[in-house]
Amino acid sequence: MGNQELLDGVKKASSMGPWMHGLLERLFPLCRSLTGPGNRETLSILSDYMELSVTEVPSGTDVFGWTVPDEWSPISAEITGPNGEVYANFADHNLHLVSSSQPIDMEIDLDELKEHIYSLPNNPDLIPYVTSYYAPRWGFCMRDKDKQNMQPGLYRARIDTKIKPGGLVYGEAVLEGETDKEILLSTYICHPSMAADNLAGVVLSAAIYKLLSRLKKRHYTYRFLFVPETIGAMCWLKNNETSKAVKNMHAGLVLSCVGINDQLIYEKSRQGNTELDRIAELVIGKTDIIEDFRPQQGSDERQFCSPGFNLPVGALMRMLPGWEFYHTSGDTPEQLTPEILASSLQATWKLLVGHEANEKRYVRTDLRGEPMLSKHGLYSTINIADKNEEKMRARKEHVSLMYLLNYADGEHDLVEIAKKCDADLLELGALAERLVDVGLLQ
Amino acid sequence: MGNQELLDGVKKASSMGPWMHGLLERLFPLCRSLTGPGNRETLSILSDYMELSVTEVPSGTDVFGWTVPDEWSPISAEITGPNGEVYANFADHNLHLVSSSQPIDMEIDLDELKEHIYSLPNNPDLIPYVTSYYAPRWGFCMRDKDKQNMQPGLYRARIDTKIKPGGLVYGEAVLEGETDKEILLSTYICHPSMAADNLAGVVLSAAIYKLLSRLKKRHYTYRFLFVPETIGAMCWLKNNETSKAVKNMHAGLVLSCVGINDQLIYEKSRQGNTELDRIAELVIGKTDIIEDFRPQQGSDERQFCSPGFNLPVGALMRMLPGWEFYHTSGDTPEQLTPEILASSLQATWKLLVGHEANEKRYVRTDLRGEPMLSKHGLYSTINIADKNEEKMRARKEHVSLMYLLNYADGEHDLVEIAKKCDADLLELGALAERLVDVGLLQ
Amino acid sequence: MGNQELLDGVKKASSMGPWMHGLLERLFPLCRSLTGPGNRETLSILSDYMELSVTEVPSGTDVFGWTVPDEWSPISAEITGPNGEVYANFADHNLHLVSSSQPIDMEIDLDELKEHIYSLPNNPDLIPYVTSYYAPRWGFCMRDKDKQNMQPGLYRARIDTKIKPGGLVYGEAVLEGETDKEILLSTYICHPSMAADNLAGVVLSAAIYKLLSRLKKRHYTYRFLFVPETIGAMCWLKNNETSKAVKNMHAGLVLSCVGINDQLIYEKSRQGNTELDRIAELVIGKTDIIEDFRPQQGSDERQFCSPGFNLPVGALMRMLPGWEFYHTSGDTPEQLTPEILASSLQATWKLLVGHEANEKRYVRTDLRGEPMLSKHGLYSTINIADKNEEKMRARKEHVSLMYLLNYADGEHDLVEIAKKCDADLLELGALAERLVDVGLLQ
Repeated sequence: MGNQELLDGVKKASSMGPWMHGLLERLFPLCRSLTGPGNRETLSILSDYMELSVTEVPSGTDVFGWTVPDEWSPISAEITGPNGEVYANFADHNLHLVSSSQPIDMEIDLDELKEHIYSLPNNPDLIPYVTSYYAPRWGFCMRDKDKQNMQPGLYRARIDTKIKPGGLVYGEAVLEGETDKEILLSTYICHPSMAADNLAGVVLSAAIYKLLSRLKKRHYTYRFLFVPETIGAMCWLKNNETSKAVKNMHAGLVLSCVGINDQLIYEKSRQGNTELDRIAELVIGKTDIIEDFRPQQGSDERQFCSPGFNLPVGALMRMLPGWEFYHTSGDTPEQLTPEILASSLQATWKLLVGHEANEKRYVRTDLRGEPMLSKHGLYSTINIADKNEEKMRARKEHVSLMYLLNYADGEHDLVEIAKKCDADLLELGALAERLVDVGLLQ
Repeated sequence: MGNQELLDGVKKASSMGPWMHGLLERLFPLCRSLTGPGNRETLSILSDYMELSVTEVPSGTDVFGWTVPDEWSPISAEITGPNGEVYANFADHNLHLVSSSQPIDMEIDLDELKEHIYSLPNNPDLIPYVTSYYAPRWGFCMRDKDKQNMQPGLYRARIDTKIKPGGLVYGEAVLEGETDKEILLSTYICHPSMAADNLAGVVLSAAIYKLLSRLKKRHYTYRFLFVPETIGAMCWLKNNETSKAVKNMHAGLVLSCVGINDQLIYEKSRQGNTELDRIAELVIGKTDIIEDFRPQQGSDERQFCSPGFNLPVGALMRMLPGWEFYHTSGDTPEQLTPEILASSLQATWKLLVGHEANEKRYVRTDLRGEPMLSKHGLYSTINIADKNEEKMRARKEHVSLMYLLNYADGEHDLVEIAKKCDADLLELGALAERLVDVGLLQ
Repeated sequence: MGNQELLDGVKKASSMGPWMHGLLERLFPLCRSLTGPGNRETLSILSDYMELSVTEVPSGTDVFGWTVPDEWSPISAEITGPNGEVYANFADHNLHLVSSSQPIDMEIDLDELKEHIYSLPNNPDLIPYVTSYYAPRWGFCMRDKDKQNMQPGLYRARIDTKIKPGGLVYGEAVLEGETDKEILLSTYICHPSMAADNLAGVVLSAAIYKLLSRLKKRHYTYRFLFVPETIGAMCWLKNNETSKAVKNMHAGLVLSCVGINDQLIYEKSRQGNTELDRIAELVIGKTDIIEDFRPQQGSDERQFCSPGFNLPVGALMRMLPGWEFYHTSGDTPEQLTPEILASSLQATWKLLVGHEANEKRYVRTDLRGEPMLSKHGLYSTINIADKNEEKMRARKEHVSLMYLLNYADGEHDLVEIAKKCDADLLELGALAERLVDVGLLQ
């Protein structure tokens, strides 16, 4: 029964696109950053969907050589021109303000002001996303076409932000399983109004929580992290360095930029041959892209896979390098269809609960020869060569059946068998349960 | 001397096509099945060519969950039409009768009769081969064009078969070698009048027996099995579960459908890296097809390689899936030329006696530096660059020589060395013997 | 500092082409052979550039089944025609005389004489290089076009050579390092006036000596061998069978025909996975050719890699089989540009001193998380997506940096890390030193 429920989850996931897209639109307007009220509100909204505990790490805390910065609260920001016209109004789009910008209020000549205005000459219609977390700066981001239209003269630049000791917050939710072996799903919440990067990851995580919480039983314990990127993941690691959350981690997945591209990209763990890496070959490897661990790009898998931890954590993405809207105001909810969110959800589900299916080790009750399948209604009693479509489909299941019966010897796990016969892992798991029911496997 | 004899066998095999084809034609008319007189007669004919012992397993015996069926003896069968015309006469072709069909004698309306007539609408000129071994049925097989011509009306269906307790028979022959390590050659005898499937395997086996029996010495003991497919192989396994035939099995090969296709297909053992699998890479891998073990198709290797036995048994085939005459009256002796039989025989010979050549581990008498070859007449005393054809051919042997002298260090077997230098295993074996003669190897 | 010096060596090597070509032209006219004055003089010239010790192995010495021949001293040789015209004058080109030819002085009819004249009908303008080291013969080599013009009649063949007990000489130079683990660079000196085969190897070896001798420190001890091919290498092996030169050999490289082709060819050691083999994948594998060890061709790596020694020795070549001028008078200094010599030198340098760079095992001072790079001036404090060229180049170094920081865990050596991030080994070594300087690595 358990395996059939996992397989049913794939179907349920297929209908959750609109739900995810709705949540994404709710989270989109908030101005998130490394710290600040936007992050607190994001976690508060997520608390509507799961039992989320929030951890705060005080400003000034040393984290593996990094320092948690003061808390940053943006209030307003805009540029006023010589004739009173307004530019780069934070109220219009929170990307107009450089993330972590210092406050400022000054009259300033255009030439000097321009050194504080970031734009994309090659993409004049887009506001870029710029951060200056660890060096004090002030600045605005604008569409280059608007920047080019600014007339010479004296401008007023006004940025009202509060920067004072506070804390970095991250959220954590746990769904207990039969064992304390844990599977981690981590994603980051520090990006302001952009959809693919990274609200897609956030809503996918929430949807997985929802699906998993409905399972009648879970072998593994599942842990969900919502952290500011890099330093947030490091804060969690520092707080958990000796905890069972780290020590019992059986698998982990970072969701990052899970939105746009047609193809999914799975990045292997640094270990390179974890159970998740092997499951990914089945789920992702056939049609999409699998890459080795790459410490120079990606997201928080770099922290989980730093050599001092070397945790079994992979990453799932859906964005090719060089996407035209990457880190700009072009990364809007409209770029993401409910369908693509649902498809990402299905893949994530298969990656995670593949561990549940693979947890049991099936063994033939009698290992000698082939079982007589027709006795169990698993094969026709008449044998005639022909080739219509229906038989071909049955044949695909027959192939899985025969591989399962041959390799269920106690030495091969389901992942290995599925790979040998090119079967869907969850379907193979459900088939194995049927064979247990008729007494061929145990 | 021994290795040269193995190499000579390749040449002898090349002339045995007509002999094999003659034996095939002698065996073709018999109506074989799982059990019955056709099988007994087949084994009786094979006894003319080898010392064959016949084992009988009584009807009703349980074999790993299967039950040996009652013995089936077909006598006659035909359909008579409203105007006395005769259809599907067993006397004309034994495929007209469903194998293991129950006896029947009834008047029956065409519509109802047709439910008991099997034909191939897509191949209207061919009689299909249909079996119902383990469920009681009666039925006929016909060319679809004849079936379509049957006029409505009352027909008489008459099948005279005897089904009563008896036994399943299989044949076994052994050629003793110097050791009791065994090499098995197994093929199946349960198919009625079809040539490629599987009389080709039967006559190939007989030819191998003939060639091996003439060898002056054999290191390995060779065992030949002629069994009904699936349950016959299982009967032998059950009878030999604890015997030395199973315990000492060093290699095994199942011959199945060795007839039609241009390319040979070698299917590896379940173990996947046996000595035979490695030899096959040399013999088959260069020009033909090597596949991994596939439990969903093929023949009795599935029983030998069931997880409870996991014997070092591979399979040799020469038929692509979807052959148009597969399991039909189109699979006639004319489909098989003596040449293709001889070519299959050569490959089988190389696969089996490759073990003989590889049995000795050659080691250089002095492992330091290169031996001075010209001293032994193995290299020219003058060195001038030029490139005529004859020198190129000599060079191919020179390459083998140099690899042999470098890798004959006691750690590499001949298979490994042959693979490194792309040499024929049996030729390399003969070359090694020459180097023993001049004292360079021991 | 050390690693930067190794990287600087690559630049120094790039300017040493003219120096190497000059030395090559100095060595070109000498008539080298297995033994004799040409070899002694070659070693004497090399002594101008390094501390070379010369070892002499007496004629008649048994070397692993070979016998050191009597010393051969060619003085003069020519053919005089019926009308006094002179052919194949050794004074014109030392290839005119078969190497190791017996002395002769006789009047002889053209037909009979021609059996002692070697030429290349397919390359009528080239004098072939012919040797008869171990069988007594006399003979001349001529351009085939000249041979075809010889008129019938009585000729005088005169060869003045001395063949008497003496010795085979080889040269050896050592540059001591911090440890007595040794790296060997061997090349052969037995070929008369040919440039690519093998004066290129000789001058490359001398240039490496020059570069290495200037290094402030060397971890490894470097040993240089200049030997007659085959028997010379065997003489050295016999003399050193139990010496530390053999026992401490950490890596070895044979230079052979390092001259003509666009692509370098690296032939792996027989062991196949030595540190040098792995370094070669970085240096050679990306653009040029790497081959497995092949005992049937190449040069003295066959002796070093004979099974009784199986030393970690690879070979570097730059000549494709079938080069039109191979072993002919067409192999002249003009075939070799200083540029191609310099390019070969750079590759050889990288292969050898790659061991120096890889000798240290770098480890992160704190293995947890990613270090904060901006704190060390290794990363920008502002983050904005754009793509100009300069940033891309910085990015390549950034990639190396991130891989280094992730994999410097004490378990991966620099070669492995360089392979993972597709970096130049010596550049990565220099980068690692910079990270040691800022305290991120130790």
